[in-house]
This record gives sequence, structure tokens and C-alpha cells, in this order.
Amino acid sequence: MEKFELNILGCGSALPTMRHLPTSQVLNVRDKLFMIDCGEGAQLQLRKMRLKFSRINHIFLSHLHGDHCFGIAGLLSTLGLLGRHGEFYIHTHPEAEKIFRPFLDYFCYELPFKVIFEPLPVGDSSLIYEDKSIEVTSFPLKHRVPSNGFVFKEKQGLRHLNAEMVKFWKVPIKDLQMIKEGHDWVDADGNIVPNKVLTKDASISRSYAFCSDTAYYEKIIPFIEGVDLLYHEATFAEDAKFRAMQTFHSTARQAAQIALKAGVKKLLIGHYSARYDDDKMIFEEAKSVFNNTIAAKEEMKIII
Amino acid sequence: MEKFELNILGCGSALPTMRHLPTSQVLNVRDKLFMIDCGEGAQLQLRKMRLKFSRINHIFLSHLHGDHCFGIAGLLSTLGLLGRHGEFYIHTHPEAEKIFRPFLDYFCYELPFKVIFEPLPVGDSSLIYEDKSIEVTSFPLKHRVPSNGFVFKEKQGLRHLNAEMVKFWKVPIKDLQMIKEGHDWVDADGNIVPNKVLTKDASISRSYAFCSDTAYYEKIIPFIEGVDLLYHEATFAEDAKFRAMQTFHSTARQAAQIALKAGVKKLLIGHYSARYDDDKMIFEEAKSVFNNTIAAKEEMKIII
Repeated sequence: MEKFELNILGCGSALPTMRHLPTSQVLNVRDKLFMIDCGEGAQLQLRKMRLKFSRINHIFLSHLHGDHCFGIAGLLSTLGLLGRHGEFYIHTHPEAEKIFRPFLDYFCYELPFKVIFEPLPVGDSSLIYEDKSIEVTSFPLKHRVPSNGFVFKEKQGLRHLNAEMVKFWKVPIKDLQMIKEGHDWVDADGNIVPNKVLTKDASISRSYAFCSDTAYYEKIIPFIEGVDLLYHEATFAEDAKFRAMQTFHSTARQAAQIALKAGVKKLLIGHYSARYDDDKMIFEEAKSVFNNTIAAKEEMKIII
Repeated sequence: MEKFELNILGCGSALPTMRHLPTSQVLNVRDKLFMIDCGEGAQLQLRKMRLKFSRINHIFLSHLHGDHCFGIAGLLSTLGLLGRHGEFYIHTHPEAEKIFRPFLDYFCYELPFKVIFEPLPVGDSSLIYEDKSIEVTSFPLKHRVPSNGFVFKEKQGLRHLNAEMVKFWKVPIKDLQMIKEGHDWVDADGNIVPNKVLTKDASISRSYAFCSDTAYYEKIIPFIEGVDLLYHEATFAEDAKFRAMQTFHSTARQAAQIALKAGVKKLLIGHYSARYDDDKMIFEEAKSVFNNTIAAKEEMKIII
């Protein structure tokens, strides 16, 4: 299978702790790296996890709180020093450019590449990125400031050729593409060979959804329904349910309830509050509601 | 002796490596913490080194390159979350406020304390901070952008009372302060008791100088002459002497030559270029010129 792997660079919340860094992730789709959020220290984690800076062309910023974006300037500076060229996209709230541009113009004025701010939809959903292998859709979360969730979906690939049958029927190369696209084939004598004889099913299309920061919000369910992996913030445990409500964050139980209702295959929790000495209580709370839960940890790699 | 300790939070240069973080240090003077530069990840290192955020009231920024100041916003946000009050001073190039203020106004608009930007002298030296125990002087370094060196000097303390003699002469409490200040004492019968009988020498006044980033620049010598500890950047070894010249950095040999000419007691080198796989070559080059050299490392604490 081609790569579809999530790398956790940081999974803490705003206050630094001994255990966690602020939010940042990298989704590796066939060796293209898509960064999601870029908290302070993200570039140091990239180095530590041996993820190639040069393979990142897009960052998706969920929202404009510092613990999700203070690593941007350092990362861009480094990309400049590494001699990067071309274009670099930051998908973010429409206000971000106004805030970041003067800062970058001062500190990163010699960048040999172009930084393009792509505004995310606010309070609405839309397809925000597409290439031959994936589609990224943004949808609204519920937080103190506008916050966006993202779902990364592999596109359905072409059917795989059944090499033995293709050889048996002596199919000429020029017809292979059409067969991979799903068409039947007609030989020189007019025999119709059904497509399913000549091909095997295409690879399963995988999907990953990122939801942080957000309060418990059932309106996200249609966007994340059935995904292979859902990252949902679980800043608090139920003991701090009121605090979660006040700050528009979720408890572990709420994250798991969303996972359950959306019928996702696996739940990954993170964005742990600094108030907890370890993440065990949070993990167990989520797991008691949704069994297939894992707790994010720095430098974790999850093959989806 | 009262605390006068240097903590190394980061001692790498701009490109992140597996070994080093960008520049940041904390000088602990009698449990007041003075931060010098604040590269990305400085707040994470504070946590790791168990240095108390609440004891920092002043940051001194040598110059406005990202690897020396991209940790500021994260640190200030965290101080806000920790409920800090009062005033917080950033001693920095006069242009800094224009660049940082809008950024902070956006991301840290709810800070419960006041951030004051104190402009550093540009191309000139001056006393920039003073309290009852230390004086901080800023002086110009030589870099691609205006860069400031700092020297932290303990003030000469009062003389220490010789408890036995004070008791023997039955000196009343009201006269002790005058004696600590160095005056002789006259008893009720008119006998003059010389000050040196009643006191011992004051503690030695210690000093620390920070010089980074800078090319080899002999004009800094009068400011750092005889200091107990000199931190001088040694970005390159002599193999990259030309590169050092081009980028207004120093080689390890040059750092050691400055230490030698300034007659400092100990040299600490750092700001290592990412081009070196380890810092041994740089260290040995400096040590061959100035024997009492140490190589900075993250989480190092040096008692001065």
C-alpha cells in the first residue's frame, strides 16, 4: 500500500509541559507531507522525526491561537535557509495574512520562495485542496475563535490489472489505461472480456480527519463519518467538564461520543491540558466509550 | 555565595539540528532570572530545566534575527496563562516594538500584564538596567544587522561583619550599617576601632558577558575585560573562515583570541553552525588558543 501515515509532532495544549509540545502533525500521503497546525517547536520535531522539510508544500492551520501556529515563522525561515524554491501554501483563516505578512516581511525578507496565504472558509465547508491522490475538505468546528476541521480523503484509485489475465488475452498496451478505468475489453474476434476478469479492485480509499480545537459539536459528524482515523481533541476529562464548556474544548468522553456517533474506525485523542500529570485518565475515559481509541504522543507514527 | 548562575536553554544557530536549539540563556542572579535571547522553544526549555517563569521580568534580545527571538510570543502567551501581573520588559532594538506589537496585540490580546519594549542603544553603549545587586551594560557587536552585547556585573556588596569582634566591642545595632559601609567605629570612651577589625571583605563582584551574534571585533574588549565568564559565539571553525567573514560570524579561534586579549577568566562558546556533526572540532580549536574554554550544551548550568 502506498503511504498514508500520520506523524504526531506535538499533542499538548497551550501551556508547555515536560511531556508535550503544542499541536502539530504531518500527514504523509505517498511522500507528500501535509502539515496540520504548526505550534512552537514544530520544525525541531520535523528534524527529530527525520521528516523531510522539502516535501512540505502545504500547511493547514485549524485556528489562530498561538499554540497552533507560533512555529510558522521559524519553519519558513528554515525553509529559506535550506534554499527552497517555488510556492508554499498556508491554508488559514482569512485574517492570518494581515497578521503574519508584516512579521514575515521583517524577519524572512530574503525567502527564495513565495508564501501564499489561502483563506479557509469561515463557518462553512469546502474542498480546499486536491491533487491526483487526495482531497482535503475543511469544515467548521466550534471554538472561541473560528476553527476549522479537516478531512483528508484518498481518491479512489484506478483498478489494478490482473497481470495473468492480461497476458492470457494478449491485451495490447494501448488498451490498458481504459481497462484500469473500468471498461470491458473487446478482442480482435469481437469477444467481450468483462472488466472484472482483467482487473482486481482498486486500493481502498483511506481517510483521516482532524478536529482540534473544538467543543463537543455534532454538526461535524457528516464530515467525518466512517473515517479510518479521527483525531479529536480531548483537552479535559469529565472532572473538568465545566471548564471544557467554558473554554470551548472537549472532554475525552465527548471525543469518544463523537467517534461513536460518526462510526469512525479509530479514534486518536490529544491536546491534553497541562493540568493532568499523565494522560492515562483521559485515555481510559475515552476508551470506556469508544474502544478503538489511542492516545497521541510526540513522535508517534500511525499507519492508516 | 549568592546565586550567579548561567543556564543554557539553547546554543545552536539558525538551522535546527538534532543536537541544538536556537539561542536562549537565563542568568540567575540571586533568584532573579534574566533571559538573554529567546529562540524558538525557549519556554519549553524553561520548563525542562525547572526555571520558574514567574521569576523572569526582563528579556535582553541581542538582535532581531529569528533564531534569537521567535520564542517571545509563545513565552508571553504562557506568562499570560500563568496569570502573571505587573510589567514585563523586553530590551531590544528600537524597531522591535513596531514588529512585535501588532503580532502580540492579535495573539496575546488578553495578557494580564504589561509588555514594555525598552529600546537598546544602537551603535553605542550604555547602562540599560540596574537594581540593588547588578548592572547591565549594552555595547555594540558587529553583525549583518545591529547586534548588542551585554555585560552583567554584580555590584560591589557591603563589607561583612566580623561577628566575634562586633560582640567583643559591644557595637550597638544602630551602628552596624555604617560599619558595613566601611567606616571606622568610635566607642563610648573615644577609642577608634578600625573598620578592618570589625569587618571582612565584601563578596567578590562577579561578571558575565554575552557576545552573539558577532564577527571578530576587538572594539568589544574594553567592555568585557576581565569578566569571570564570557559567552562568545563560535559559529564556525577556521575551515569556514571565509564563510564566517561573509556572514559576520566568528570562528572558534577568533572567539578564543578575543577571550585571550580581554583577559577573561573563562570562555564559553556556542551558536554552532548546523554544518558540523559534532562540536568537538570547534571546541578544540578554541581550547588550543584559550585553555579555559568550555563548550555550551543545552541544559548546562554554569556557576559563575
